[in-house]
This record gives sequence, structure tokens and C-alpha cells, in this order.
Amino acid sequence: MGLLVVGSIALDDIETPVNKVENVLGGSSTYITLAASYFTSKIELIGVVGNDFSKEHIKILEDHNIGLTGLQIKTDGKTFHYGCKYGEDCNNRETIFTDLNVFENFDPIIPEDFRKSSFVLLGNIAPELQLNVLSQLESPKLVVCDTMNLWINIAKKALIETIKKVDVLVVNDSEAKQLSETDNIFSAAKALQAMGPRIVIIKKGEHGAILFMEDDIFCVPAYPLESIVDPTGAGDTFVGGFTGYLHKTKDLSFNNLKRAVVYGTVMASFSVQNFSTVGIENLEQSEIAKRYNEFIIMTQFD
Amino acid sequence: MGLLVVGSIALDDIETPVNKVENVLGGSSTYITLAASYFTSKIELIGVVGNDFSKEHIKILEDHNIGLTGLQIKTDGKTFHYGCKYGEDCNNRETIFTDLNVFENFDPIIPEDFRKSSFVLLGNIAPELQLNVLSQLESPKLVVCDTMNLWINIAKKALIETIKKVDVLVVNDSEAKQLSETDNIFSAAKALQAMGPRIVIIKKGEHGAILFMEDDIFCVPAYPLESIVDPTGAGDTFVGGFTGYLHKTKDLSFNNLKRAVVYGTVMASFSVQNFSTVGIENLEQSEIAKRYNEFIIMTQFD
Repeated sequence: MGLLVVGSIALDDIETPVNKVENVLGGSSTYITLAASYFTSKIELIGVVGNDFSKEHIKILEDHNIGLTGLQIKTDGKTFHYGCKYGEDCNNRETIFTDLNVFENFDPIIPEDFRKSSFVLLGNIAPELQLNVLSQLESPKLVVCDTMNLWINIAKKALIETIKKVDVLVVNDSEAKQLSETDNIFSAAKALQAMGPRIVIIKKGEHGAILFMEDDIFCVPAYPLESIVDPTGAGDTFVGGFTGYLHKTKDLSFNNLKRAVVYGTVMASFSVQNFSTVGIENLEQSEIAKRYNEFIIMTQFD
Repeated sequence: MGLLVVGSIALDDIETPVNKVENVLGGSSTYITLAASYFTSKIELIGVVGNDFSKEHIKILEDHNIGLTGLQIKTDGKTFHYGCKYGEDCNNRETIFTDLNVFENFDPIIPEDFRKSSFVLLGNIAPELQLNVLSQLESPKLVVCDTMNLWINIAKKALIETIKKVDVLVVNDSEAKQLSETDNIFSAAKALQAMGPRIVIIKKGEHGAILFMEDDIFCVPAYPLESIVDPTGAGDTFVGGFTGYLHKTKDLSFNNLKRAVVYGTVMASFSVQNFSTVGIENLEQSEIAKRYNEFIIMTQFD
């Protein structure tokens, strides 16, 4: 079975200190599926778009062999439209507008054929929708779940219900602290693991990521970049690369999860070097392999 | 020849959100020499103390086989006294007072026997004093230099002169940005390398450290700790462990510098678990080896 991905699909307006783009491809599942497509060819995307979602955008997904059977195209509405602006060092993001449009009434229907999917990635959407998806599935082998501070603020109860049912929870450091109500990320990870997921990944942006699997810890730095063009979707790209690699290898050992975290980090590094999904649209396998090998030099000692 | 260490020796008053201590052993060279003593037995400390520096403090240094031939004891004055207070998460330090006392007129005289030292560690003191020390030495093989934001603010010209003459510069991330006038640590490291030192180490506190050697980069995370008792001296302890290991092994290859960075990180992790130098006063070699091995699990993949 393929890798089942559920998440948002959006058109984004993004402003950084040096540039501004409008109506570019965005949304959690877009970054996720593109990143995963470099590792595994069987990906099924469950999402919704409106009548303004262009053929060119569809083609980008199709060119990456992303299955669109589960993509709902609503001709009576517009695609989820999101606008944000970044501060000087690209660390602070301000949401300018959030027009949910067709996403407001998104009902994630999993086609019959995909209900037995064994690898499922719940991209960053409302936890109620994530629970809805899980209820349609027959005993998946690995459920990876991403989320964000918005849901901790407005839907914490549903989020905690979701977390109970997932194998891997991916959050950033401030979300981990907020959700666990602790001020130390190692304490936070333990508290989150106690809430359900055997595996927790805490993303730290420019400081890399930490994988927690039972009592084991694996730390990976971010790829060294002297400038960031657009951080939008970096976390989604990370989780897409991570899960895509696991889906390809079907190996859930700690050592293979380490490799998956490094591949996720490599993919995120490409994503932030350009606006929207441009940085992960036309990669060569050799470019990915090159950065993976740079991580070996950058982190390995004997 | 032994490892020559020049730096401050102080009595500290330290207040954290949970506790307060007064007149405890402090100063850059104190942490440095104690940390280095776990790796190499030939260490010579150049520093100055006053008439209030107790026999117990001298004994701590002697018990670690730290050579005190170069220690000046001024009977007509008091030891450098420093007071600071930490904020809620121990990330923010406020200096409460700085009584230089006998340190104000410190003239670092290198005893004749040590002028041919091949490994020299210039702890965090005024860059003019660091230059003074260097002028007394005969072609050292490796000069490691630590500094702090204070000297960037008030003695930048002398600091730049010092940096020109050292092999390894150790700074934290904000100091690296300030000194290089860039806002990205990878650009900052390149700029600092262009100022002289072949090797630059950027300390990132809870996010670990990055070693830059010519075009190569090595990243190491911090040791995972769920609480920090006292961060004072963590950076000094890091550089002490790092240089002590290099002095022991006499191997300046990139791979051995990686190991040295890991040992520095291990030593810093012990330091912050107790007030003052208490965390690095009575360690067993097996405890250091255990944490080093934990770093292997935490960072190595294949």
C-alpha cells in the first residue's frame, strides 16, 4: 500500500524582508507529499482545493507521482488562502490572513482502496479532522502526526485524543513545551511520550531536531545555510522526507529512524532555499545524497 | 611541556531562581584547569589571587595536579569578586557587581620554564593581557583563545590583534555575530576565520557547539539535561575539556578535534549540574567515559 497523506493544500502569499510572492503553492500536505516523493513512489494525497487551483499546480503534484484519487476539487469555492510576513531574520512569522474557503468544510473521505494503508501521515490540520481520518482506517502500522500551536490553543482536548492514537508526534520546541506544560524540552518529550506516542520528534529550526524513541535520544543539527529565502513549509518538508524514507525502507528500528530524521533535515534544507515548494520541486537524487553525506562528515566521529 | 593556562581566578556570588551561594570558587582559569585536569596532568596556571583566597581553594587546584608556580598571591589585596543573578530559565545572566581587586593590575608573568610551552590556553581575560602573554612565548604549537562580549564592546581593537595570533577562537553565537558584524553564524564563522584563526568554535549553550576547521564543519548537541543548577563557567569548562584532550593526545587532525569538542561538551554538562566548580571537582573517569559513549548513541548513525 502507498503512503497516505492528509493535510491542507493552500495558495500562499508570503512576504520576507527581501521579497514577496502571491498565490504560490502551499499547505502542509503539498510540502509533505513533494518531499516524500523523492523516497517512495506510492503516495496518496487526501485534500481539498477550489476552482482557483491551477492545472500547473496539479501538474507539479502529478509530475511527482502523487496519487490524487483522494483530492476533492470544489468548483463552487476557492482554495484555502493563507498570507504571512516574516521578520528580519526569518524567525518570526506573522499571519496576515487565513481564508479557509473550501477548507472550512473539508470532510476527509478516505477512498475504500486506501483504508488499509499501513503508513499514514497526518499533516498539520485540525485534530478533529485527524481523528476523523484515523477512524476510517483499518489498523495502520505507523501513524505520524504533525500539529501546530494554533490547535494547542483552540483544540487541545481533541489534539490530546489524537496524540493518544499516533506512533510518532512531530512538534517544534515551543509547541512541545506548551503542550506538556514544562519549560525543558527533554522533560517535555517524556511528558509527550507518556501521552501516547512511542516516538516524539522535536524540531528546533536552525538548531536542528531531536528524536526521542522510548528512552533513546538522537540529535541532528540543521544543514548549515548562510541565508534562508523562505522558511514556510520547512517543518512539513521535514516530516515528509522523514516519513517518505520510512515508507520506502519499512524499517522502524532506532537506527533507521535516525537516518529518516537526517533525510527529513536534508529535505527541509532544500525547501528553505527558495519560495513556496520551488526548492523541492526539481531535485536530483544526487543532490539529496550529497547533503546526506555532508551530514555524515558534519556529525560523525570515532 | 605542560598546558599553559592564563585566565581569571575569582570568588563568585551566584544567585539562581532556586538558590544563592557566596564567595565560591570561580573565574575562567579555575574552570578551565579543573576540566583539563581530567585529561592531562601537566597544567600550569598563571593567575592572581588576594589574601582572601582560602587554603581550601588552593587545595582543590593542587588536588587536581594543577601547577601553581605561576600563581601570584597578593597579600595586600582581595581576590577578584564577581556577582551575578540568573533569570527564570538560567539563560539570562545579570552582572550584579564586578570588583576587580588584585585582578585590576594583573601582570601575567610567564615563568622562564614555561615560555616554551607548546599548548597555550588564553582564558577569558582582557585581550591586552592575552597579547602580553603571547609576547612572552616562544612559538607555541597551539594557542586556544576564549573571550566574551565585554571585550568586543570595550577592547575590540586589541581583541582583533589577539585573534590574528591564535589558532583556535572560542566564542558563543551572539559574540560571533557581534564580532563579525553578521547575523548568521555560518557567515560569522567564515568571517572570524578570515581574521586569523584556522579553527573557530561557536558555543550555542543548550543547542550545543559547532567546530569550524578550514572548510569543514562539525556540530555537536549539548548533553540532554532536564535541569540546570548553575550555568556559570560552562563555556570555560568546555574549552578546558577541549584543550586538555588535545594536550593529552597531541593530535590536531579534524577527527581528533571532533573528539575534543565532544569531551568539552561532556565536561560542560557536569559543570552546570552544580554550583561553582563543584560539578567538576570529583569526577570519575568512568563518568566521563559514560557520557562520551552516550554522545555516540545520541549522534551517530550509519
